[in-house]
Amino acid sequence: MLIISINKDAGSLQSQIVKQIIMHIKNGTLLPSSVLPSTRNLSQELNVSRNTIVTAYQRLISEGYLETSAARETRVSAVLPEVVSSVIRETKSTDAVEIKTNVKFRNARIHTPEIVQEIVNRNSRRIKYDFWVGRPDHQLFPKKIWRQLLLESFDSNLISMVQYGNPAGSERLRSVIAELVRTTRGIATTHEHIIITAGIQEALNIVSRLFVREGGNVYVENPCYQGAAYVFKSYGANIVPIPVDAKGMDVSQLKGKPPGLVYTTPSHQYPTGVTLSLKRRKRLIRWAEETGSCIVEDDYDSDFRYDKPPLHALSGLSMNGHSIYLGTFSKSLGAGLRLGYMVLPERLTKPAIAIKTLLNNHHVALDQAVMTRFIEGGHFERHLRIIRQEYRRRRDSLIGAIKHNFGKQTKITGAEGGMHIVWNIPQGFPDASNLQNMALTKGVGLYTTNSGGSVDFLQKDNQNSQIIMGYSSLKCDEIETGVSRIASLLRGNWC
Amino acid sequence: MLIISINKDAGSLQSQIVKQIIMHIKNGTLLPSSVLPSTRNLSQELNVSRNTIVTAYQRLISEGYLETSAARETRVSAVLPEVVSSVIRETKSTDAVEIKTNVKFRNARIHTPEIVQEIVNRNSRRIKYDFWVGRPDHQLFPKKIWRQLLLESFDSNLISMVQYGNPAGSERLRSVIAELVRTTRGIATTHEHIIITAGIQEALNIVSRLFVREGGNVYVENPCYQGAAYVFKSYGANIVPIPVDAKGMDVSQLKGKPPGLVYTTPSHQYPTGVTLSLKRRKRLIRWAEETGSCIVEDDYDSDFRYDKPPLHALSGLSMNGHSIYLGTFSKSLGAGLRLGYMVLPERLTKPAIAIKTLLNNHHVALDQAVMTRFIEGGHFERHLRIIRQEYRRRRDSLIGAIKHNFGKQTKITGAEGGMHIVWNIPQGFPDASNLQNMALTKGVGLYTTNSGGSVDFLQKDNQNSQIIMGYSSLKCDEIETGVSRIASLLRGNWC
Repeated sequence: MLIISINKDAGSLQSQIVKQIIMHIKNGTLLPSSVLPSTRNLSQELNVSRNTIVTAYQRLISEGYLETSAARETRVSAVLPEVVSSVIRETKSTDAVEIKTNVKFRNARIHTPEIVQEIVNRNSRRIKYDFWVGRPDHQLFPKKIWRQLLLESFDSNLISMVQYGNPAGSERLRSVIAELVRTTRGIATTHEHIIITAGIQEALNIVSRLFVREGGNVYVENPCYQGAAYVFKSYGANIVPIPVDAKGMDVSQLKGKPPGLVYTTPSHQYPTGVTLSLKRRKRLIRWAEETGSCIVEDDYDSDFRYDKPPLHALSGLSMNGHSIYLGTFSKSLGAGLRLGYMVLPERLTKPAIAIKTLLNNHHVALDQAVMTRFIEGGHFERHLRIIRQEYRRRRDSLIGAIKHNFGKQTKITGAEGGMHIVWNIPQGFPDASNLQNMALTKGVGLYTTNSGGSVDFLQKDNQNSQIIMGYSSLKCDEIETGVSRIASLLRGNWC
Repeated sequence: MLIISINKDAGSLQSQIVKQIIMHIKNGTLLPSSVLPSTRNLSQELNVSRNTIVTAYQRLISEGYLETSAARETRVSAVLPEVVSSVIRETKSTDAVEIKTNVKFRNARIHTPEIVQEIVNRNSRRIKYDFWVGRPDHQLFPKKIWRQLLLESFDSNLISMVQYGNPAGSERLRSVIAELVRTTRGIATTHEHIIITAGIQEALNIVSRLFVREGGNVYVENPCYQGAAYVFKSYGANIVPIPVDAKGMDVSQLKGKPPGLVYTTPSHQYPTGVTLSLKRRKRLIRWAEETGSCIVEDDYDSDFRYDKPPLHALSGLSMNGHSIYLGTFSKSLGAGLRLGYMVLPERLTKPAIAIKTLLNNHHVALDQAVMTRFIEGGHFERHLRIIRQEYRRRRDSLIGAIKHNFGKQTKITGAEGGMHIVWNIPQGFPDASNLQNMALTKGVGLYTTNSGGSVDFLQKDNQNSQIIMGYSSLKCDEIETGVSRIASLLRGNWC
């Protein structure tokens, strides 16, 4: 709809229309080549005769403002009369709404986050052998069944698409998720304590708004997943990094520290891939209970355990409500779905739902319906079985290729599960940052602790000898080619 | 997947399995009647012979823990052995994860929002003639074309469903929205300054995180939309209510006040339905520029103007970047979509995208693709034309019915556009709260300023003489019946 106001007592209607269209063109609300409403529609909208519109358009065409296209539409001229186009050029610069005077927000301070996570890999479109992290293979997406459930859900959930829904999420989806975390993660819960979120990222905001205020302590694993660390920082947290070793976060270092929020990825630590040992899990829970702290368990990668059955979730061990569990379908199905959930202890449930309500009322309705059917129909379990098997094969290819090219002693960590491993570069080779750059010239994407979506607050030396390699979205032969390209690159450079 | 860990060196595998299943049943991770994995799947998962599993299941069946269903599945018994069920009853209470000891978050204070908006109408399922506000008619949803575009989008956007996307939203959708707000709202902008959000509610969080800190001034219309007022409060804002009269927010009252954020719904004020006059719009912008304040224009209802062409958006008049425009598809299509957008001035764009990234990485991919096609194909404009015509008819029915039953002098406001009107109850009738309760007994849903999703910070007397009536989701005959029921109710009570 074009905004034109007609005043039937203010002289020629045709002139009013002509003037206002020129104004729209001059101030950039009608851009060159944009299509105008048909004379029929405009005449109905303005309640003036169609003839008046036709004549007005003709006049504008003769003056060079409008033109008719091959499809017989009326458009704003691609090349405008000189007097107009200079104005347009001015307003069409990249900062179309940029300040023209010097008035600023002199007093109202704008609060800009210091730093945010990078979630999109800029290389992806440019290189073929990209070991970017945490990306499912879209070719393994359960396309056929999802498409069918999408239609079924659409057909039977129209009202939920139109109206507002339950802020915590669909009760049916929360029930199947409760069942899922009970059986696969050992967490005794019910749908009442589950909230559907836009991925784990949103859940981290809910947790932050519950616990974090300016200067509050948040204990994070070091190195740590960027998305978590930066969101805590954005709420003013005082980030306290706790080093990670082969058994996960070194929770002994929490002893004597003041209470706070603890963020951990116990199944498959991000980025090192290590698993938090059972002893440490218990110790961490004890510390949280003794100090009155709260643990946030980010279980992003737990769907993938290859060699042993999965450990109970940490939140399944914490019986006193000192742990919040965060789960996601971003890894098993896809990040574009933006579908995750949180499992809360009783006393935190209501405040968390209140925050979710304030954030965006509730999660998208249709996707919740599709996911419910997907899990209820047993498709999710079947899908997991398929991709687990395939990712395991890819992991084995990657480990095999590294050992084949760099020797059996090459140290690889984080291989028990997840979608990536950490390759500890042998001595005498370039460091991780250099290797990353060199690999890029051969069309291979490798990542360091920092470039791979994590952050190292302690800047330990050994971090620059670690390469993070995601294998879930590459086929076995691509994995092998990628690794052998790195090998020949290093041989060439080395000899 | 059931979590069972097998230790091949720790004696009978069958006993290990039996013990662990009993443990799962006892601690509530396996609930009564839940289905166990098939013996075949479990044997594969645990890498033990199928026979071992079969024997273990049989033993559990004989002990009463498991049973076989008609469908030949193995389930946890619906009625458990006495010794077990007492434990289950305990953990199955509503507070399954409730604190069992007295350990609390002694030190970590939980920050609970004081109050949140109510978005779901609790009456909806119980009454037939429900004048609840802001709800589109799901029968007018463009079902056929949306279904088709859903499939097309799914088929051609699989990668975007699997991977992370642009935090600001799909560039193509942002471009068509830029075109839309340029032509229909008179805002000169480009896709670079647009962010796709989970409805206006999420956009209000982004605005709050940009501007609001503890004690900061936020000027709101009084009465004000709850969702906005409460989200500002949740970020610690000092809410300053500015009264609304027949010409919208009385902006003269801002004179001399310190700078801050101003929240306004100029097209169709919520809840009064009045339109902010052009003079006041200009004055408001001037004040914002002079004091260095920022205006948030919530244009939730602007798709519906019935008698005159729409006014330019306030943000179209503000050329110095002192206004943020918020738009939504919740009213034109449906709230369950959770699809909205914000148009930002240049200097706020990057910080706002950073906050959106921190909040949830980006909006759901598939819905963005569907909406893009829906607008590009001209379906959105067509759909608006259809529902505008139909809602106008419903509005006319409602006004006609009120005037017919309560006299031609009955004062109705906010009728020029939107999806609701305000009926000013004639003198001598019960006040709004009483009328609401009385109407409910006759199956008619009426709402007051406070019960209809808004909040009155000044508690003026006349607010209790106003009834808010949404008409968009009722058919003309339902509207007429609803109003005549109120009339006969009042006659009965009155005589």
